Amino acid sequence: MRGDCYNAGCVTREILDHVFSRWGSLVLGALLERKKRYSELRDQIGGISEKMLAQTLRTLQRDGLLERRSFPVVPPHVEYSLTPLGGECARRVNELVDWIESNARPLERAHISYDQAT
Amino acid sequence: MRGDCYNAGCVTREILDHVFSRWGSLVLGALLERKKRYSELRDQIGGISEKMLAQTLRTLQRDGLLERRSFPVVPPHVEYSLTPLGGECARRVNELVDWIESNARPLERAHISYDQAT
Repeated sequence: MRGDCYNAGCVTREILDHVFSRWGSLVLGALLERKKRYSELRDQIGGISEKMLAQTLRTLQRDGLLERRSFPVVPPHVEYSLTPLGGECARRVNELVDWIESNARPLERAHISYDQAT
Repeated sequence: MRGDCYNAGCVTREILDHVFSRWGSLVLGALLERKKRYSELRDQIGGISEKMLAQTLRTLQRDGLLERRSFPVVPPHVEYSLTPLGGECARRVNELVDWIESNARPLERAHISYDQAT
């Protein structure tokens, strides 16, 4: 079965909404390096709120893209890591994030030139 | 200059917001095939409203990722196509969309198994 993201009713549209989102993409990219604790993710991802991080982690866990592991210690220690499926996805996410970061200059120039013309 | 999408104040975070979005990704992917008219895009992308399509096209044009060409005919004829920069971006977008569509089955199974466990 192959999905169709252009069909609003397909399950893949729901996944696209999660992966093609500001916080979903940044969380997946951050976990591609290695497993991380909740606080590490919060500190790495500029501008994310506790609520949005928790919600994004839960959503990506339900999609089967990441795993949550909690250790029964005080204070609580919770780690997140990519599943094999999540690793495949995150590699593609990171290729696109990397492309954006590498093209900061032409993208910024496009804004300036558009704003001058309009 | 290399950008940093993890920095909320970097210009690349703004681009990430546009490219890593439901409508931005689907518009870029749709234009990778060939240039298209406004009405073709509207018909191809399930669930998009006229307002969201117009806004997404304007945003991606300002980012330098697509070009708008209007022909002085009645009724109006407007075409959208990727710029060379947009083509590079859209190829990476489509690799991720394609991965999601190809993995519809395991992604759906993950939902079922998460929902049964919680």
